[in-house]
Amino acid sequence: MTGIRDVARDVEMSTATVSRALRGLRGVSETTRGRVLESAQRLGYVPSPSAAGLASGQTRTVAVIVPRVTQWFFAAVVQGAEEVLRERGYDLLLYNLAGDPSARHRVFETSLLMKRVDAVLVLSLKPSPGERDRLSRLGRPVTIVGADLPGWATVRIDDEEAATTATRHLVDLGHERIAYIGGATSGVLDFTAPSARLAGYRRTLDRAGLEQPPGLEEDGEFTAAGGQAAALRLLARPDRPTAIFAASDEMAIGALRAARELGLRVPEDVSVVGVDDHEMARYFDLTTVAQPVHEQGRVAATQVLAALTDDDWTPEQVILPTELVVRRTTSRPGQTRT
Amino acid sequence: MTGIRDVARDVEMSTATVSRALRGLRGVSETTRGRVLESAQRLGYVPSPSAAGLASGQTRTVAVIVPRVTQWFFAAVVQGAEEVLRERGYDLLLYNLAGDPSARHRVFETSLLMKRVDAVLVLSLKPSPGERDRLSRLGRPVTIVGADLPGWATVRIDDEEAATTATRHLVDLGHERIAYIGGATSGVLDFTAPSARLAGYRRTLDRAGLEQPPGLEEDGEFTAAGGQAAALRLLARPDRPTAIFAASDEMAIGALRAARELGLRVPEDVSVVGVDDHEMARYFDLTTVAQPVHEQGRVAATQVLAALTDDDWTPEQVILPTELVVRRTTSRPGQTRT
Repeated sequence: MTGIRDVARDVEMSTATVSRALRGLRGVSETTRGRVLESAQRLGYVPSPSAAGLASGQTRTVAVIVPRVTQWFFAAVVQGAEEVLRERGYDLLLYNLAGDPSARHRVFETSLLMKRVDAVLVLSLKPSPGERDRLSRLGRPVTIVGADLPGWATVRIDDEEAATTATRHLVDLGHERIAYIGGATSGVLDFTAPSARLAGYRRTLDRAGLEQPPGLEEDGEFTAAGGQAAALRLLARPDRPTAIFAASDEMAIGALRAARELGLRVPEDVSVVGVDDHEMARYFDLTTVAQPVHEQGRVAATQVLAALTDDDWTPEQVILPTELVVRRTTSRPGQTRT
Repeated sequence: MTGIRDVARDVEMSTATVSRALRGLRGVSETTRGRVLESAQRLGYVPSPSAAGLASGQTRTVAVIVPRVTQWFFAAVVQGAEEVLRERGYDLLLYNLAGDPSARHRVFETSLLMKRVDAVLVLSLKPSPGERDRLSRLGRPVTIVGADLPGWATVRIDDEEAATTATRHLVDLGHERIAYIGGATSGVLDFTAPSARLAGYRRTLDRAGLEQPPGLEEDGEFTAAGGQAAALRLLARPDRPTAIFAASDEMAIGALRAARELGLRVPEDVSVVGVDDHEMARYFDLTTVAQPVHEQGRVAATQVLAALTDDDWTPEQVILPTELVVRRTTSRPGQTRT
């Protein structure tokens, strides 16, 4: 097995320099680091996390805490983060909570992370005050994706603005009875997006001077099945809405199916708009507010890696832009799309 | 931080016994191991992978090598595996190849895995002879999901049978011009499913005495976009097929969109059947051959964990059943579904 001495011999440097270069420590020029990394890769040298970890406290591993890896959004963020980490020689330890409170407890409440990783990415979860406290005490860079947490490094979209864009699109088309399908604003998987998106919807109706009759806001649990059930309830009402804003594409896709089940035409009888630009959105011709999902993973990984090597690093709040993508599920009330 | 001595004191056993229990070694009764694990969890003890790894060679980590984590199939297998690993206190190190040959090289060609993990799950890749050689020399349990590799532990479906089920469904409905959308049967991401599914399609047509005109087999790259492009080519032919068997639901979903683009009705003008029962299949009313995806992850994780603790373990080839799910995208040629 290739050892650090083999690399040192190959580049004709001391093992101390090679070690500093490999561990990303300061006092090594970029040129030197480049030569060392090139040699290490060519010779097939891989630092032992056990030995290196004990010596330097570094594990070259980043934890990514994910609510549910089967949801496309989270998988796409993981893919983006993983690309950046791989390029820099870091491995990705995946903690999938899958709605299990004990999994969340295990990750946040124990000293698990401290011993295993150099940095942490938290996806779409708002850590509780206790969890924040423990994350702080880790003494490791932490970036939160998809949630707003002042004072912490975050990467996200402006959820209220995304919801405003979607709702305004429906208002501009002339809809007056616009329903909302969102998700619980608290719970084990307390995303922060649900409350911000609901706020954007309400504010937009308010500014447009539209009445908000009770019962037009439904919980779709941020899943396709939940969106379908929510839309079935909404579309069975005597004062049936002419448009639905679903706070995620998966819920919007469920709503499209509910409309079909009830024999309603989309968009003639009901318009549907989502948020995400899910990889399947175009196959449903779904109008949506697109967010750069993959890019959020890349930016978050870049942030924590910068924190690991830059002394002057301060937590940044990065907000990436969203964009309305008009397809065929929205139109003026009663009309086909032209 | 809670140490092994704290656990030993709590359960009134020697640190040697506690250590053996925590590392899953033999010579400790299940009752004792249960008491130790309960105490360790209650006190928040987490073994340090650095220290424990050096002492015992164990890392309590399993590598999962995934072609592309954004594809629903792989994410669902990962979720199934992760559940089982988490229950047993193992972490999951995710290696996402994302079509990058250097990522594959890094994982298989270096000593990376040897130093980091106790076991390996390989998803839908057929390791090359050289890679198999290196995996063997790892001396760690390896299970391969979704590929057939005699002598190795594998978990998969019978791909040829799944393709036979799908094709026979179309034959039984009376179709005679049946096209196939599959994927490359070799390449960087050399799944083994493509060739087995193609074989099942061909054999079924053969047995039914149906002619196989040239040009009715297309490469859809196992993606929705690829399936769409392939179906556009097939459906533009003068001898347009009346039915398409797509070897994955994602490609079938692309084919549905291609039909819509061309103004063809499904199933009246063209029937479409896939394989998987993708989470979105029901929202497209897609007829498909369902496979237990999540379960494949669970079984594979259970296999490698058994190998870690059982001296008499031998590699098993597990084949899980598939099932035709008839929805609304298939019918007799020229007819609506009844």
